[in-house]
Amino acid sequence: MLTYSFENIDCPVYEYLYKCIKDDILSGTLAPGEKLPSKRMFAKNNGTSTITIQNAYDQLISEGYIYTLPKKGYYVAEIEGMTPINMSAEVHYDIRIPKEKEYICDFTSNEIDSDNFPFSVWAKISREIISGYKDKLMKISPAAGVFELRKAIADHLKSFRGLLVDPDQIIIGAGTEYLYSFIIELLGKDKIYTLENPGYKKLIHIYGQKGVECSFASIDDYGVTVEELRKCNADVAHICPNHHFPTGINMPASRRYELLAWANEKEERYIVEDDYDSEFRIDGKPIPPLFSIDACNKVIYMNTFSKSLTPTIRVSYMILPVHLANKFYRMLSFYSCTVSNFEQYTLAEFIAQGYFEKHINRMRLHYSRKRKSIINSIEKSSFGKKCRILENDAGLHFLIEVNTDVEDCEIVKRLDDEGIRIKAISDYYIKDTDRKEHCFIINYSNMDEARIDYAMNIFEKILDK
Amino acid sequence: MLTYSFENIDCPVYEYLYKCIKDDILSGTLAPGEKLPSKRMFAKNNGTSTITIQNAYDQLISEGYIYTLPKKGYYVAEIEGMTPINMSAEVHYDIRIPKEKEYICDFTSNEIDSDNFPFSVWAKISREIISGYKDKLMKISPAAGVFELRKAIADHLKSFRGLLVDPDQIIIGAGTEYLYSFIIELLGKDKIYTLENPGYKKLIHIYGQKGVECSFASIDDYGVTVEELRKCNADVAHICPNHHFPTGINMPASRRYELLAWANEKEERYIVEDDYDSEFRIDGKPIPPLFSIDACNKVIYMNTFSKSLTPTIRVSYMILPVHLANKFYRMLSFYSCTVSNFEQYTLAEFIAQGYFEKHINRMRLHYSRKRKSIINSIEKSSFGKKCRILENDAGLHFLIEVNTDVEDCEIVKRLDDEGIRIKAISDYYIKDTDRKEHCFIINYSNMDEARIDYAMNIFEKILDK
Repeated sequence: MLTYSFENIDCPVYEYLYKCIKDDILSGTLAPGEKLPSKRMFAKNNGTSTITIQNAYDQLISEGYIYTLPKKGYYVAEIEGMTPINMSAEVHYDIRIPKEKEYICDFTSNEIDSDNFPFSVWAKISREIISGYKDKLMKISPAAGVFELRKAIADHLKSFRGLLVDPDQIIIGAGTEYLYSFIIELLGKDKIYTLENPGYKKLIHIYGQKGVECSFASIDDYGVTVEELRKCNADVAHICPNHHFPTGINMPASRRYELLAWANEKEERYIVEDDYDSEFRIDGKPIPPLFSIDACNKVIYMNTFSKSLTPTIRVSYMILPVHLANKFYRMLSFYSCTVSNFEQYTLAEFIAQGYFEKHINRMRLHYSRKRKSIINSIEKSSFGKKCRILENDAGLHFLIEVNTDVEDCEIVKRLDDEGIRIKAISDYYIKDTDRKEHCFIINYSNMDEARIDYAMNIFEKILDK
Repeated sequence: MLTYSFENIDCPVYEYLYKCIKDDILSGTLAPGEKLPSKRMFAKNNGTSTITIQNAYDQLISEGYIYTLPKKGYYVAEIEGMTPINMSAEVHYDIRIPKEKEYICDFTSNEIDSDNFPFSVWAKISREIISGYKDKLMKISPAAGVFELRKAIADHLKSFRGLLVDPDQIIIGAGTEYLYSFIIELLGKDKIYTLENPGYKKLIHIYGQKGVECSFASIDDYGVTVEELRKCNADVAHICPNHHFPTGINMPASRRYELLAWANEKEERYIVEDDYDSEFRIDGKPIPPLFSIDACNKVIYMNTFSKSLTPTIRVSYMILPVHLANKFYRMLSFYSCTVSNFEQYTLAEFIAQGYFEKHINRMRLHYSRKRKSIINSIEKSSFGKKCRILENDAGLHFLIEVNTDVEDCEIVKRLDDEGIRIKAISDYYIKDTDRKEHCFIINYSNMDEARIDYAMNIFEKILDK
């Protein structure tokens, strides 16, 4: 007869009994085919109720450890291939997560300062949404995102960017990285995807992981050229014409029309226009996107709220030409939208009630001042005489070029040793041709201005080492 | 001299002027190389200030429509390949979105009733997070998700499912569909992914779109068999052992150990355990997942908050064996986490403060009652005598089997015509072997009980047609 100690148990008795019996089966103490005590006898022996025993037996039956024969009783099941496991053992943890080093100045960060997120408005709208949208919040979002958000974005694009789009052309996703996989699924894995050189290197990883072939087109002073695209056998050109990363180049209209003409030569050609931070042109209006002058439905436009709101919110969107939107609905609408309804409706109201435009205007002023003040600090410093600032009044980064014989990777390493994280443009080249040297990227959105002088002093010092 | 009418303009004058000139360039009214009026003359002629003209010219320069020659003036740029576009025209909208039909009874819906979401607690925690976590909310989440959420999930799994996992084994993503792509990237595109037949058909689309080869293993009364996996040349078996969809089968322990032994035969073999609705076993404890008895690090465990909270929240997670977690951090941590920080921290607190467990307990009781009441209604109806209810006290769906000569697709069609949406198990087979006929799936989580009698009457009626 099975007898277990009932002292100091920290769970219901039936659960405790179930565990004891299971452990005995797993350890072989109870052999396959062995008959278990009847519920009545077992209960009596252990001083519990037959219902407790019944519950324990039922759980063991549902997990397949024991079986019952009508009018005969309960038996231990034959469990083939069973490996006895010590269930109470600790798991062996040995997971190596790349540690993030702490920096005094991090010129690579695109986080935004928490003073610059409109928390109180966001909280107010979240509250309104949770209390007023209960049914909508529980209704599964269409694959492309909820209509209210797509409509709000379309209206915003119309008044802010002069873009006329149907909300049904807009596809919402949890980050542009996620949307890239839709592009591959829409345009095909067999196409050659051409990225800018230098360019946003993460794209190589992303396209690479999805198993598509990438080629790399060098850029000149106006961005990527048709000649390079031809050399690369490009089918799909993934470009940032409005504030190229990292160089900051803004592609002029003539080049834009050349690219559109290139795309229009063949049916399989497309341009992915990555408009990741066009909202913050400091003076004048944002540059109209390539999408707005595309008469031939060859441009897929992508944008994100990462720069304009915060990268931690994970909402991006793409605008598809009509025929690709139709293809999306035909082929890919089985996917669930990756953004939570709570966030989609909150953002939709945030835009529709005019807060997004207010936020952008406020942030443009803020970034404009911050940028000027930082540039001013650099120019006034003694390091300022040894470097040149390259910028075009746009976006959340600018460049400083230094005159030195020290190699870029050595400069980056020396600065890193001093607690300053920075990246050189040369680090964003995939191919080695005409690498631009000694030019460094200053992301300033999250930069503490008080630390600029420190950083520039160090920069000057390490160059003379 | 350019002259434009300044009546009824609805934007800043410089912007209006910029648009007029750009339209004239695009329409060819202003030819390439043509000299534009000097700022002073132009201002005088139009009765505006030179600063206004300067701003308009600057915008045109930055977009590349005009250029300036020092001390000479402003000229229209040569724009090759330019297609004049009527910028004010409406876009041609012709996007066909599959229309969702409205049903009186939808037995396929897995939405939850908005009465069953803990809105007030969620609102309270959201508020706490927005006011107390400002800095954390702006800090970019690790690829695997914020630690607080992974820790809360690990603690929950320990007390609720007896699973001992390191929070670093847990990867958060915006839906299981998204996490599947990680699995493919971790295990390789060259593997054969074997799905259950019948099974959750969306997986075919998802694996198919990612371009991996799928095979289909038939199941017996205890789930998938090793023999079938061998026949399928399976490398990765994607299964639902704890409440199989759609049959509801709960795999017994002996079969589980057989599958683990199979996986352990070869290095490339893995089991993906899709534990999509195990929280709601009506009686007894939830079945311990396969992951908990896997001594050989061969099981990837997946779960979601779709069933336990709401599918509209888009948070899922997977637990990787330690070596795969290391591979994830080495290979895939460049990806941004797809769930917003706001939602991650809110959910983390919701779990950590014990609300999730309370919610599950409340919902289990709710679903248990609802299930019994619906089954009772069916059994009492005259249709009840003609059908058999198949269920095993678990999950958010059960089955009804009818005795009829009418084909399943015809039954589904007839019911659809009457406003009832239902799916047959036979519809979830990929291969035709041993198709189980006349068995229909009743998802009841969002079902209005008052409509059950109506639905069963119709069901009876259409069988006799």
